[in-house]
Amino acid sequence: MSRLLYTCAYDGLAYCGWQSQRGGNSVQDTIETAMSRILKEPVRIAASGRTDAGVHAHAQCFHADVPAACRMNAENWVAALNAHLPADIRIMHVRQVADDFHARFDAVGKEYEYLISRAEVLSPFMRGRVWHVPHSFDAAALAEALRVYEGTHDFRRFAANRGNEPAEPPADFYIRTIFCASLQEEGDLLRLRFHGNGFMYRMVRLLVGTAHQVARGRMSRGDLAAMLDKPLGGKTRYCAPAEGLYLHRVFYEK
Amino acid sequence: MSRLLYTCAYDGLAYCGWQSQRGGNSVQDTIETAMSRILKEPVRIAASGRTDAGVHAHAQCFHADVPAACRMNAENWVAALNAHLPADIRIMHVRQVADDFHARFDAVGKEYEYLISRAEVLSPFMRGRVWHVPHSFDAAALAEALRVYEGTHDFRRFAANRGNEPAEPPADFYIRTIFCASLQEEGDLLRLRFHGNGFMYRMVRLLVGTAHQVARGRMSRGDLAAMLDKPLGGKTRYCAPAEGLYLHRVFYEK
Repeated sequence: MSRLLYTCAYDGLAYCGWQSQRGGNSVQDTIETAMSRILKEPVRIAASGRTDAGVHAHAQCFHADVPAACRMNAENWVAALNAHLPADIRIMHVRQVADDFHARFDAVGKEYEYLISRAEVLSPFMRGRVWHVPHSFDAAALAEALRVYEGTHDFRRFAANRGNEPAEPPADFYIRTIFCASLQEEGDLLRLRFHGNGFMYRMVRLLVGTAHQVARGRMSRGDLAAMLDKPLGGKTRYCAPAEGLYLHRVFYEK
Repeated sequence: MSRLLYTCAYDGLAYCGWQSQRGGNSVQDTIETAMSRILKEPVRIAASGRTDAGVHAHAQCFHADVPAACRMNAENWVAALNAHLPADIRIMHVRQVADDFHARFDAVGKEYEYLISRAEVLSPFMRGRVWHVPHSFDAAALAEALRVYEGTHDFRRFAANRGNEPAEPPADFYIRTIFCASLQEEGDLLRLRFHGNGFMYRMVRLLVGTAHQVARGRMSRGDLAAMLDKPLGGKTRYCAPAEGLYLHRVFYEK
């Protein structure tokens, strides 16, 4: 047996999200089916985390164990899997890792990208790939609002319930660190980046949606700071749509 | 009656091309249907020219006549038509033109863009939108080959037969001027631009496909020049795929 770490990109538009779902058309199921065809035996893969329906990835990571009898090296896996996958899911590269490596538990950080288009008319080439916000808002105020999130905070007001919660998570579950939350303006396109040590369910979309309220002048940066300082208040109601979100990078030690 | 000039963008992937076709799903039919719904009467539109199945447009132009009774101004037309069109076709702007203006006959030039991706693995976000050429070729040689096309030449060896040709076209039909044929390298992406006074059926794709033979070292620039200087030889066999091609701009006087 040998353990391989795969990096893949996908356009999430056609999928019900990463995670296997009964009767659902998930990215995970699609990849497992392709791998099973190649190996001629059932395969389970473990990702760095889930992505929701419609969310994209530039570089999602997952690991899988392949039998010692499998002669394919990492490079062959890229071509073989891509030949069995639809064009909206691509394996970008593959490398061998230690047998106890885990794509989720060994991740030390993640970077998400969120795209907003301010174009009056959305280009047909951007549909399903950005949040289209043609009404006016202050991009500089958005950039400043994002900075409020930087640092170590209790982000529970920016975590959605999945609906199938287990027992109450440990108290430090909601404490996360955002190393950097930045905004780059490229013409009509705003490129937001969030680099942190871990993100909860819908967290990035809730961070974007709420910061956008500041950019619209409906909340102040002080209100945002108070949501971090007083984590026992109500959860934010402002969730930016899935289609603007990209899992951009997963960080591992070394 | 007043004549309006519409500029639209479309992702050609789902369409059988611009031109109305019996039983076909064309861009023209889709727009005419949307306009007819708004005006509650049949509408015919006339474009600057056709695009093939799978070919895209950043800025195709077409004109249409709307009844004097129609109170919508140009700006209202953008919103109204976009509300009736699928997201892969977008009206970018509309302006009023003289009653004798014609989107095709008054065009004095066109610019096409052709995108080539040299990425080893094609990004899922580029599928259907570039010609994916992962094998090695010389981009500098491609740029030099494109320069051979510049100027006024008889391009008949770079014009495909449509299959339903009318009588022999006039002798000067094949004489076209390419003002500029350039290449810009952006990482893995090659952006080719062709600005000319008019292009024949499949001409840009044939220019790209044949220049690519030079970039692969299978033809010389001298061979290319000879195809322009001796127009009565056989037509080129090298046609680049539709999905990399974009009608980028249509030029009108003033």
